[in-house]
Amino acid sequence: MTLQDTTTHPCSVRGVLLYEVKHVRDMVRGNLAVLEFDEVLPFRPRRCFITYKIPAGQTRGDHAHRQCAQFMVCVTGSCRLRVDDGRHWEEILLNRPTLGIYVPPQVWVSTQHGADSALMVFASHPYDPADYIRDRPEFQSLIGGPGTSRPRA
Amino acid sequence: MTLQDTTTHPCSVRGVLLYEVKHVRDMVRGNLAVLEFDEVLPFRPRRCFITYKIPAGQTRGDHAHRQCAQFMVCVTGSCRLRVDDGRHWEEILLNRPTLGIYVPPQVWVSTQHGADSALMVFASHPYDPADYIRDRPEFQSLIGGPGTSRPRA
Repeated sequence: MTLQDTTTHPCSVRGVLLYEVKHVRDMVRGNLAVLEFDEVLPFRPRRCFITYKIPAGQTRGDHAHRQCAQFMVCVTGSCRLRVDDGRHWEEILLNRPTLGIYVPPQVWVSTQHGADSALMVFASHPYDPADYIRDRPEFQSLIGGPGTSRPRA
Repeated sequence: MTLQDTTTHPCSVRGVLLYEVKHVRDMVRGNLAVLEFDEVLPFRPRRCFITYKIPAGQTRGDHAHRQCAQFMVCVTGSCRLRVDDGRHWEEILLNRPTLGIYVPPQVWVSTQHGADSALMVFASHPYDPADYIRDRPEFQSLIGGPGTSRPRA
């Protein structure tokens, strides 16, 4: 049996943090991944949603939030996320229940699900359609950056 | 596309509630299940854990909590839960991301995972080893009931 504590890793996109969450691996009893919200997350979730049975190649997300922060874990299968702060973007492959990603407000996210995957998303705020930014020029204007974003150098 | 709002269904075990959570089914974009904590849950979660890669036939849980309430969703595969208030027990099959179960404190739970399943559990309290009741006679004494529990009549 092995126990690993939470570790975090920054990314080139503003405020985005990758988490390897606390977990126990046990060949006999099975595995456990744990998120103590107050200890490890920058917010206490008000909402959770799960996206699943997403056709391969279908892009989900493709928006930013004005105020809502999110934390995402791909519970089964894998999901490719693109996170973009308007200056830099990175692609992250979420492929295990212990790998989480914190996405602060005002970061654009799009996701592509692999076959039979399920993505669990915690949100810092209740659902509010006015919090979504779906228009790319509006996003660029909000973050005060240039019109295009570059991948990590 | 179909949208279904949250519905709840009682069970014969004290305080246990089954939820069909709010969800959107969409053949083109894929599916979404949503839990607005403040609106639908009796508590706002302080902790989440995921049990996964559990060997078939392995029993997990097998305890009650003194104060901690839980809400469980089997995100992929299926899990068989036995919930028991010391007077009655029921077995519940969690087999889809839209089916949740609320388990109040002082209800004994054990789980058996199906192959490749992942069970997501929200807890009302941070982890506290003193909150666990793992001894069956202590549990029976706490709930003030007889020594054995019956299945639903």
